[in-house]
Amino acid sequence: MSIRVGIVGISGFGGGEALRLIAGHPAFDLVYAAGDSSAGRPLIDRFPGVPHKLAGLVIAKWDPEALPDLDILFASLPTGTSAEALARVPDSVKIVDIGGDHRHVDGWTYGLADIWPERIRGRTRIANPGCFPVATLTALAPLLTAGLIGPGNIVIDAKTGISGAGRGGGDGRFGYAETNENLQPYGLLEHVHMPEMETTIAQLSGGSAAGLVFTPHLVPMTRGLLVTVYCRGNATTTQCLDAARGFYAGRPFVRVTDRPPQTKWASGSNLSFVSYAADPDRNLVIAMGVVDNLGKGAAGHAVQNANLICDLPETFGLEGAPIWP
Amino acid sequence: MSIRVGIVGISGFGGGEALRLIAGHPAFDLVYAAGDSSAGRPLIDRFPGVPHKLAGLVIAKWDPEALPDLDILFASLPTGTSAEALARVPDSVKIVDIGGDHRHVDGWTYGLADIWPERIRGRTRIANPGCFPVATLTALAPLLTAGLIGPGNIVIDAKTGISGAGRGGGDGRFGYAETNENLQPYGLLEHVHMPEMETTIAQLSGGSAAGLVFTPHLVPMTRGLLVTVYCRGNATTTQCLDAARGFYAGRPFVRVTDRPPQTKWASGSNLSFVSYAADPDRNLVIAMGVVDNLGKGAAGHAVQNANLICDLPETFGLEGAPIWP
Amino acid sequence: MSIRVGIVGISGFGGGEALRLIAGHPAFDLVYAAGDSSAGRPLIDRFPGVPHKLAGLVIAKWDPEALPDLDILFASLPTGTSAEALARVPDSVKIVDIGGDHRHVDGWTYGLADIWPERIRGRTRIANPGCFPVATLTALAPLLTAGLIGPGNIVIDAKTGISGAGRGGGDGRFGYAETNENLQPYGLLEHVHMPEMETTIAQLSGGSAAGLVFTPHLVPMTRGLLVTVYCRGNATTTQCLDAARGFYAGRPFVRVTDRPPQTKWASGSNLSFVSYAADPDRNLVIAMGVVDNLGKGAAGHAVQNANLICDLPETFGLEGAPIWP
Amino acid sequence: MSIRVGIVGISGFGGGEALRLIAGHPAFDLVYAAGDSSAGRPLIDRFPGVPHKLAGLVIAKWDPEALPDLDILFASLPTGTSAEALARVPDSVKIVDIGGDHRHVDGWTYGLADIWPERIRGRTRIANPGCFPVATLTALAPLLTAGLIGPGNIVIDAKTGISGAGRGGGDGRFGYAETNENLQPYGLLEHVHMPEMETTIAQLSGGSAAGLVFTPHLVPMTRGLLVTVYCRGNATTTQCLDAARGFYAGRPFVRVTDRPPQTKWASGSNLSFVSYAADPDRNLVIAMGVVDNLGKGAAGHAVQNANLICDLPETFGLEGAPIWP
Repeated sequence: MSIRVGIVGISGFGGGEALRLIAGHPAFDLVYAAGDSSAGRPLIDRFPGVPHKLAGLVIAKWDPEALPDLDILFASLPTGTSAEALARVPDSVKIVDIGGDHRHVDGWTYGLADIWPERIRGRTRIANPGCFPVATLTALAPLLTAGLIGPGNIVIDAKTGISGAGRGGGDGRFGYAETNENLQPYGLLEHVHMPEMETTIAQLSGGSAAGLVFTPHLVPMTRGLLVTVYCRGNATTTQCLDAARGFYAGRPFVRVTDRPPQTKWASGSNLSFVSYAADPDRNLVIAMGVVDNLGKGAAGHAVQNANLICDLPETFGLEGAPIWP
Repeated sequence: MSIRVGIVGISGFGGGEALRLIAGHPAFDLVYAAGDSSAGRPLIDRFPGVPHKLAGLVIAKWDPEALPDLDILFASLPTGTSAEALARVPDSVKIVDIGGDHRHVDGWTYGLADIWPERIRGRTRIANPGCFPVATLTALAPLLTAGLIGPGNIVIDAKTGISGAGRGGGDGRFGYAETNENLQPYGLLEHVHMPEMETTIAQLSGGSAAGLVFTPHLVPMTRGLLVTVYCRGNATTTQCLDAARGFYAGRPFVRVTDRPPQTKWASGSNLSFVSYAADPDRNLVIAMGVVDNLGKGAAGHAVQNANLICDLPETFGLEGAPIWP
Repeated sequence: MSIRVGIVGISGFGGGEALRLIAGHPAFDLVYAAGDSSAGRPLIDRFPGVPHKLAGLVIAKWDPEALPDLDILFASLPTGTSAEALARVPDSVKIVDIGGDHRHVDGWTYGLADIWPERIRGRTRIANPGCFPVATLTALAPLLTAGLIGPGNIVIDAKTGISGAGRGGGDGRFGYAETNENLQPYGLLEHVHMPEMETTIAQLSGGSAAGLVFTPHLVPMTRGLLVTVYCRGNATTTQCLDAARGFYAGRPFVRVTDRPPQTKWASGSNLSFVSYAADPDRNLVIAMGVVDNLGKGAAGHAVQNANLICDLPETFGLEGAPIWP
Repeated sequence: MSIRVGIVGISGFGGGEALRLIAGHPAFDLVYAAGDSSAGRPLIDRFPGVPHKLAGLVIAKWDPEALPDLDILFASLPTGTSAEALARVPDSVKIVDIGGDHRHVDGWTYGLADIWPERIRGRTRIANPGCFPVATLTALAPLLTAGLIGPGNIVIDAKTGISGAGRGGGDGRFGYAETNENLQPYGLLEHVHMPEMETTIAQLSGGSAAGLVFTPHLVPMTRGLLVTVYCRGNATTTQCLDAARGFYAGRPFVRVTDRPPQTKWASGSNLSFVSYAADPDRNLVIAMGVVDNLGKGAAGHAVQNANLICDLPETFGLEGAPIWP
């Protein structure tokens, strides 16, 4: 069986990672790739290491009215542009939107695949979760559902590699020399990622995520994302680890570790790592979550969602071990 | 006037940075450098760019009973080893201990120079603060003393460059390939840095630092340290900034910025940057502090302390602007 | 069909990369992993992202007399130690030696798989080429065999990521802080890699590689290797590119590009990239070769050799596209 | 004595480094800073760590007809734009042009300060040498003038940090994620830097630099530049080192080392390091040169030239030791 797949947004980091994963997928056949900045060039010009079978595919200019026959479309468009662009895609084409415009939107299923796979199977419009929410919610879900922490006053201190900010930065903000040897907090008390997390925390806990604090930081590395989450609860470390091991039993991509996870453990893979350190005397639980922001935080998660909606094994094309070192 | 200066621990990063600063100091004359791994070699073998005037100084094997005539000794020894080593230094030699053994210890003055310079003048035994406490306390002191935040339940999420972990790592833990493209939390809920911070927060606030949480992370960069500190208080951002600007008025090394500070702003300098983002509706104040972990977090601070105890202008040898990019 | 595979030297970078590739190989079944520093621990302790099927495999202490039933052994031992260690492996076990002790040694086949695959099929003792020679010889072979350059007076300016120097450096030489933001030539006019290259250049050209110059440099990146090779010959750029395209026609892993290749193009893959720039008026040909030093420069090449000696398709387990960015 | 100094091109890396050095210069007083992208903002907005005395200086829009009273202007403008811009600067203002437009141009003195300081004293229009030529010519000058190597068929394999390519790259080419973990040759057999080197090699040797080859590479580090230069000559390593030590005797910024130099040795300083490895049997001399591309390769060299034309001690403002680590 061959499933005909397309990517729009091939020039960006999310689109490029989707290409890498789809190229190695046993059931997906890439037949369409669109991207504004590279339109008209064969894939191999843009991706010199692309597998031979895809080398000659010519990058198309995006036009939702002129798509070839497709079973699934992966969309990796800048936030704010995908709503309109994807509205014109025929209903017969399943969509996984890696971008941020359709999360918790009517008609779209929020694709938190490691936690709610059953909600995703059989759907045709999937909104991939954001990279920060994925790492955070994967770490918190077992505690919230077990009542080991409360949903209020959670503090998320998040750190991401520079690829999370997108391609090189037309304004030089993410140039190598400016970004290397530099660590930058940004977006303090802004709310761009907050509704997605508040809504999901409320769904997981049945309570209100009031008082949520989220502080992202840019770290001088290409890939990788870690959240350090400070929660209120009187569980022990062992209780947290046990809850997570139970919650994710049988789930293929989430690993619960005794040690604090490091971003390199996940690099290039679709894995999530979670761990915990708790001090009941202080009513404190520290939850940690690690993903590759382009893997489980974007394209890997999208392929996992695509597997689910195509009724394929969830791990198809996603079994590659992380790169080390 | 020439002040005769020595360094013990010249082979480590703190000792090396002390050498760089002392080499450019208008009143200090380096006459002694000791270090186990380099003993017997001229300084220029170990530091190929050392100024000509110091090139021929031969690195000594450390022996506190055989010191030359010295006015000040900078000690940058591994934690746990300086107490005994420095006890045998003659009383006539002033000491600034960059290491951690003498902080809040009887007979030693805790050298938080940007905050308490008057406590330091005239003393002869100074314990340099730790790099994490410096960044944290510099950010918090204005708020604690003004009562804008409470001393309890403070959460410090700290990020440091790899030089904070010391030389290359005999066990390979800080090898380039293992550390690059990797972000690592460590030491969760351990207490090595806690007493220093708890004691000082209590002194600054007059209250108890109960519930303090401190989580350090290793960031793949050589230098730089940022703390993101989550506090309880109902001040506004403007009130916090104003308090800090008032508190540090006339102080030469602390800069209060409207924007979140970045580690590169301080690189190679003795500057501290602090900023704040507050949400009174949530009783939340986020304080941020940036230093170069080897500058204000170690050797720069030590030179500042040495200036104070020698009754020199506080900025002598420390006016170099940060490296950019 | 399942082929029973072992790795000795699992703790090193070459062994770890072999593990990653074998874990995704469709015909290899890892049943044995040995490594001194990790002996007694399950693989997942050392490699937190290892696939579930291998997670519980316990790392053995190396003992060639106590091997389990194996079809192939991959050896990634420090240079100078594998000759003795591998001499005691039973004849029934095929060996691919990633280390340097058996190159151009009697009884062992020099496994330059992209160039001489037919010499490798059916053999049982394969010496993997060194990472520098692979990149160099892959770039030069088409020109040498076509007589477009002469074999004498070739100058190889080589640049490798730090993983090429092995694990973190017990003496701190490859510590992050010492190595980051640093570029280091080393081993000038030394001869450790020379005989392998001289012998092979002579074999390819039928002439003498007299006057060969080889200068390696350590570049502050984890993976990647580029050689810039200055040769004497009066071919044009087009002639060189055409010769290489002809020479590697049908070969799956070598890509000839019009643009100068970049190390990131190969990262995490078994690909080699070669390109050329020539100026016949100056009798000059510049040949460039790029590999991932741990992929085609070590473990990827070893798996390719193992495929050849097991009469499997050459690309089994090696089709993963490079990581970007 | 205070010398009134201006900088045009303050927003770029060269201009920023000039600012850092001038801020610490004992005789220079910065009274003017111009830069298109930052015009109208105080310096401290753009450079948060600038010394207090300069913090309030407002960045001007460049207008050569509306300059304040200046003794010297440092120009760091994009190549191709400075010829016209600087032609309108009054004759009374001395100029050091860090950019490339005036090298070996009539009416301008080529400011190779470590080699020809006497040619620079008393002049008013100085063309700073390019970063690659500085490193190359500093390494070669002692050998060329002594006849230890010939001027023909020299091969320069050059490696520079990313800051050498200028600010972050409007087109994303030098974005962090694209550039990190990547090593890129570029500009093969192009001639942009060649005339400057050919002319100077001819002047130093009295012969022709025919057959010169120059291959630059971008290395994933912010600062630092190394050239590895392959020359023909039958000198020994010792003869080369001796020649260089003699040639640079008494010169303050050039260091001749037995070991191959590393880029980090020069980081943040105005130093040049040179070393040699020769094999008379092969008629081969390898010369190596290291500079900080923004220091001796740009702004440091410019300050040195400014010292010379102002008849100040050559080392004023340039004695800072390199940053380590």
